[in-house]
Amino acid sequence: MAKQIAYLGPAGTFTEAAALRYDPEAQLIPFSSIAAVAAAVDSGIAEEGVVAIENSLEGSVTDTLDLLIHDSNLSIRHEIVISIEHCLLVKLGVSAQEVSVVYSHPQALGQCRRFIEGCLPNAQAVAALSTAAAVEDMLQNRSPAAAIATRRAAELYGAEILAHGIQDNPANHTRFVVLARHDHPPTGRDKTSLCFAFDDDRSGILYSVLGQFATRNINLAKVESRPNKESLGRYIFLVDIEGHREDTHVEEALSSVKAEASMMKVFGSYPRYVEQ
Amino acid sequence: MAKQIAYLGPAGTFTEAAALRYDPEAQLIPFSSIAAVAAAVDSGIAEEGVVAIENSLEGSVTDTLDLLIHDSNLSIRHEIVISIEHCLLVKLGVSAQEVSVVYSHPQALGQCRRFIEGCLPNAQAVAALSTAAAVEDMLQNRSPAAAIATRRAAELYGAEILAHGIQDNPANHTRFVVLARHDHPPTGRDKTSLCFAFDDDRSGILYSVLGQFATRNINLAKVESRPNKESLGRYIFLVDIEGHREDTHVEEALSSVKAEASMMKVFGSYPRYVEQ
Repeated sequence: MAKQIAYLGPAGTFTEAAALRYDPEAQLIPFSSIAAVAAAVDSGIAEEGVVAIENSLEGSVTDTLDLLIHDSNLSIRHEIVISIEHCLLVKLGVSAQEVSVVYSHPQALGQCRRFIEGCLPNAQAVAALSTAAAVEDMLQNRSPAAAIATRRAAELYGAEILAHGIQDNPANHTRFVVLARHDHPPTGRDKTSLCFAFDDDRSGILYSVLGQFATRNINLAKVESRPNKESLGRYIFLVDIEGHREDTHVEEALSSVKAEASMMKVFGSYPRYVEQ
Repeated sequence: MAKQIAYLGPAGTFTEAAALRYDPEAQLIPFSSIAAVAAAVDSGIAEEGVVAIENSLEGSVTDTLDLLIHDSNLSIRHEIVISIEHCLLVKLGVSAQEVSVVYSHPQALGQCRRFIEGCLPNAQAVAALSTAAAVEDMLQNRSPAAAIATRRAAELYGAEILAHGIQDNPANHTRFVVLARHDHPPTGRDKTSLCFAFDDDRSGILYSVLGQFATRNINLAKVESRPNKESLGRYIFLVDIEGHREDTHVEEALSSVKAEASMMKVFGSYPRYVEQ
């Protein structure tokens, strides 16, 4: 039986593209929020769940970070990076000159601002809930409209692709994580994601904790902070390090961090994504 | 003549409340985007501009961070922290039981989710562009509607406040910054905000840079990262430290950071906000 994978839907979004890249054989089940994807995995409706965690232009998907920190005990089992290619979709036969309204998710509209201004100067940009919902809005509009969405959404909805690769910045990649009940066994090319916090904010404690990694030559792939949601100016730090939590030097570093921090949570170890 | 201060409008938003707290005598000029507020200060339309930079629940306002990093040479001259109190506004005479739709900015709807579920179980939540726009949407709706907005919006629009302090988490504060052409002279109780990046991501370089502050007992009020917008996994780090950039030990630390980093930009030094 095919593996069941929950993802942030609907079909035709970049998250679906990431889930297909991860497991082309899986049965994909769309959910309408990141929390619902996690609940589906937690309850056994799906074995794994795919959600976006970071985009190279917009930064972190804070809903995913906050879920991992506060609201879920699921682990990260894999990561997937996909290149974001936005396409301009229309109903068959509509030309760019006719387009009076262009629908998309606000992030996609922002990422294609120069294209819209240059090539659709008379079009009004209108926000949609997702790039796939934008295609539905476009199809329902009686006047000539366009949607910015994925290549696959064009197939799914029978729309025509008028232009592709229309994002202003070609370096547009999104990183997705696969959530599961257990993380991944060591492969030799792994990453580990974790978060930690401190009871006091005395000078140098973050420095000291990062030193646990630096002195063991453990590379930091990422450091960022999220509010602790209790008090302005108090943070939870999120770190991605190279190595698996079962590697001896990583294991040692994690125990030392745990001893210094008031809270530490390891989200999991998983194979580092390698472009295919 | 009163000082002219640009802010992210419209009137009745929390940003207006922050600008009024900062200078009750000023002439406030609303603008429709963070970039437009900065352009108004840059071009001399206003002397200063007020924009949100961080909320204790939602985290950073990434548009403001990206403006400071990439798109503006304005300095941070002040900071203001205000407590976010959401109120439930209706047309005069409407009762909570009648309300079938509740408008607000998506963040405000999210922050009052438990109140909405508990006290307005039959109301549909509908997104608005700002809390002030939500009041306009509510007033225009012919059926009994409500809006989640500020106390001041109720005054400005002649709406009735049915409930106040309706946010789920009482620890809800937003930090605003005042942008100007120059930062603030030393006061003895200052903060300095800056960002830096590295050409390579070798193990320990962030650790080494944070050591420049730690070894001089300079407290880090905040550390976070934003994508560098060129490549996934490459970041620009943002740091708030205690002290003024003209203080000797801060000046020394900043020169050392500059020598190690491939890029460093000081956003300014300004008096630390003290609750009034």
